Amino acid sequence: MNMDVIVSLCKRRGFVFQSSEIYGGIASCWDYGPLGVELKNNVKRAWWRDNVTLRADMVGLDAAILMHPAVWKASGHLDHFTDPMVDCRACRRRFRADQLDAQPWTHYCPATKGNKFTVAAGEACRHCGARRTLCPECGKGELTPPRQFNLMFKTFMGPVEEDAAVTYLRPETAQGIFVNFDNVLQSMRLKLPFGVAQIGKSFRNEITPGNFIFRTHEFEQMEIEFFVNPNDTIDGRPADEVWHERWIEERLAWYQRYGIRRENLRLREHEKGELAHYAKRTADIDYKFPIGWSELEGVANRTDFDLKQHSQASGKSLTYFDEERKTHVVPYVIEPSAGADRSVLAFLVDAYREEEVRGEKRVVLRFHPDLAPIKIAVLPLLKKRPEIVATAQGLRARLARRWTTVYDDTAAIGRLYRRQDEVGTPYCVTVDVQTVGDAEKGEAGDRKVTVRARDSMEQIRVPIEELVTVFGELFDGAVWSAVAARYPAVKG
Amino acid sequence: MNMDVIVSLCKRRGFVFQSSEIYGGIASCWDYGPLGVELKNNVKRAWWRDNVTLRADMVGLDAAILMHPAVWKASGHLDHFTDPMVDCRACRRRFRADQLDAQPWTHYCPATKGNKFTVAAGEACRHCGARRTLCPECGKGELTPPRQFNLMFKTFMGPVEEDAAVTYLRPETAQGIFVNFDNVLQSMRLKLPFGVAQIGKSFRNEITPGNFIFRTHEFEQMEIEFFVNPNDTIDGRPADEVWHERWIEERLAWYQRYGIRRENLRLREHEKGELAHYAKRTADIDYKFPIGWSELEGVANRTDFDLKQHSQASGKSLTYFDEERKTHVVPYVIEPSAGADRSVLAFLVDAYREEEVRGEKRVVLRFHPDLAPIKIAVLPLLKKRPEIVATAQGLRARLARRWTTVYDDTAAIGRLYRRQDEVGTPYCVTVDVQTVGDAEKGEAGDRKVTVRARDSMEQIRVPIEELVTVFGELFDGAVWSAVAARYPAVKG
Repeated sequence: MNMDVIVSLCKRRGFVFQSSEIYGGIASCWDYGPLGVELKNNVKRAWWRDNVTLRADMVGLDAAILMHPAVWKASGHLDHFTDPMVDCRACRRRFRADQLDAQPWTHYCPATKGNKFTVAAGEACRHCGARRTLCPECGKGELTPPRQFNLMFKTFMGPVEEDAAVTYLRPETAQGIFVNFDNVLQSMRLKLPFGVAQIGKSFRNEITPGNFIFRTHEFEQMEIEFFVNPNDTIDGRPADEVWHERWIEERLAWYQRYGIRRENLRLREHEKGELAHYAKRTADIDYKFPIGWSELEGVANRTDFDLKQHSQASGKSLTYFDEERKTHVVPYVIEPSAGADRSVLAFLVDAYREEEVRGEKRVVLRFHPDLAPIKIAVLPLLKKRPEIVATAQGLRARLARRWTTVYDDTAAIGRLYRRQDEVGTPYCVTVDVQTVGDAEKGEAGDRKVTVRARDSMEQIRVPIEELVTVFGELFDGAVWSAVAARYPAVKG
Repeated sequence: MNMDVIVSLCKRRGFVFQSSEIYGGIASCWDYGPLGVELKNNVKRAWWRDNVTLRADMVGLDAAILMHPAVWKASGHLDHFTDPMVDCRACRRRFRADQLDAQPWTHYCPATKGNKFTVAAGEACRHCGARRTLCPECGKGELTPPRQFNLMFKTFMGPVEEDAAVTYLRPETAQGIFVNFDNVLQSMRLKLPFGVAQIGKSFRNEITPGNFIFRTHEFEQMEIEFFVNPNDTIDGRPADEVWHERWIEERLAWYQRYGIRRENLRLREHEKGELAHYAKRTADIDYKFPIGWSELEGVANRTDFDLKQHSQASGKSLTYFDEERKTHVVPYVIEPSAGADRSVLAFLVDAYREEEVRGEKRVVLRFHPDLAPIKIAVLPLLKKRPEIVATAQGLRARLARRWTTVYDDTAAIGRLYRRQDEVGTPYCVTVDVQTVGDAEKGEAGDRKVTVRARDSMEQIRVPIEELVTVFGELFDGAVWSAVAARYPAVKG
């Protein structure tokens, strides 16, 4: 499928807007609209519930984005979180070296009396051995040798813009966990193995962001640092390796639990040369995005690298006292690091379906009910009958106490259903003439409403006073057909 | 009460840690620990539920922190969001002008042959009329005249640190709503009056932050922009004025709904001279913090200022079509703007009590159950009995499916209760010998546990299979005494 279809749906239906769009937008920044913020919050809530609330071995954390710059020195980000850049000495434009290498270039070769050649991408001139030296934009300026450009956003704290005041927007949430290791350990009286989970914004001054919310300057991470005693073994194997495998399985299962199809997920092992300098092993969970297989989450064994670095740089001990062995130990850490925005994109893409219903195209987002931005839509069949409208609005208020529920009367019922399908609302409730009766004619209503399921489009007739029970069961995981069997079916 | 008591409790029990503490900390940045992140999430969730989910006239939004710099030009922040600063020409230190004025200074007066005087704060020399001219730090350098210093954090997007790449960390979330006005209006088919609500981080390069999490460089806002048709009247009065009053009442009620005592809240009307240039009227909701009465939330009538500014600067129409009057209108906006961190602090301070129980001091946080970071603690009376531990751990897993529940066996029961009181856990469940019986002696357990209420410290004996029902009622708002009456009391 095409990314444009998703981008267009997201704008039209209030999932994602381009940031500062009225000013022409700003590179790779996106805003979550009314439905997008609910979807993203649901993704984050599901992650937090499954990884923090339900687990006895996990606690949460929410560290500030602005940290002491020494953190980034110790972590290695100041020195190593860089891309090689090349400047033009004339027009001062800047390019990523590897991207310049990826383009062919025009060369007037001195070894052939200035003849003009097009040299292929990444190659040197066959005659003089020269590599690209002139700016591809202005064509005149000489290019500098590649220099390392740091990807952290820099800012100044306090009133003076000088080196002493420089600080950075964190490029990852992980370091907030490492520097708080001892505070968390002491205040929570934890025993290894345990994890610290965090959801928060990070910032990377990427040279080539793009592909909608897949790669952005500002993004939200859902990270776990799971600390393991490196002296422990499980079934005769090092505990960190076993826990690494467990986390890979757990995270693969998590995406599937919320509706992502297995065939759109794959595990990609990092090869030796690709491994980060701190990692013993890393496996990526890739998703088959419209742009191709790309990283959704990385699960790394960071060993004791970070805690040791911060301990050395700060002079503070960051160890755990192993009661059994009576020794201080620096824990190993397994890091399942997911992107909240990428997860939202994957859930959107995987839920998107175009179906044919009675010769017409139906667009439907088959979201897992826990993720759907709207759980229930209450719709009046006739807008002109005040009793119908009042009953529907009253129902919305009652259901909204437990589930995100909207009321909509801005179109005819068929179109209203399609609109809810398109944003993935699992259930619609329709109030009609039968529900409220006709007071003028002395006809009492049956106080029943039509409940329609998004996926099967089946409809059943349910008494109003049983709605909370019915939705309670459905959102608790009951199968539609089992619940629907108790009520008379309504023809669509 | 003293702020230090709260700061110390927050660190000891994992609510709030100083950011980058192992590196000596960083000015006015704080990290939320395991209990703090739960508390803050609960505050944000309660705000979102009451202001977005439950209301039919509100939608949410989550705009990016990085926006197009033109936004800050149009909003007035680039030109007016400033503090007057004074530089020392010798040591280059910088001071806020109004704070220099607030200190007495030493003056060698030329009009009295260089006699030394101490001139009172804010006053000129009685003899020569001079105002402070020398740096109070180095004592030598001359001070520059006050210059306006912008409070926005500046950063550079893209690889080049030049003016064209300058952007800012947003100093308020509000503008993200204004620039998205039309996107939200169109995608959600809204009718006036309606509101857009947003929770997110903002950044201000304050010269004098401080007082724990009260004023920090990085903070989280909970803002509503509620759009009203300025041509509408309600009971003969302008609709914007009526909605302003409604929002003041609603927000005052909200803090009380979650436990803040009325006597610690006050309404403070901004006087004419104090009003922001865009505001028709502003009322602050102040809380009696340990540092004195200070702003918790501001409720402003921003009129049509922001939408008009952005419309003019961007050239895009930001109007609403009034179907009834067949005219395009620029809505007025009422803005209830709360601080999430300040709310957390207020809820902490207001919940804090020191009580005397049987001659001993008991510290208890009387959090509203919806805000309490831990809802239930499951405690084993004896750690050495595996059946007790297994039963307690099993109970934790079961209750955690609906409520944040912890298991703790790291002390004797009396101390465990005190620890839970100190972090505001509404209920403890204790598993004891009676619960599990003694298999070796052939004694069956009664499968009942002791449930203890935080506030009254009363205890009742409840069958395990009824726990979910009991807690369901209690967390749904049932009164403890009504529920407890159904079960036998246990002596504490």
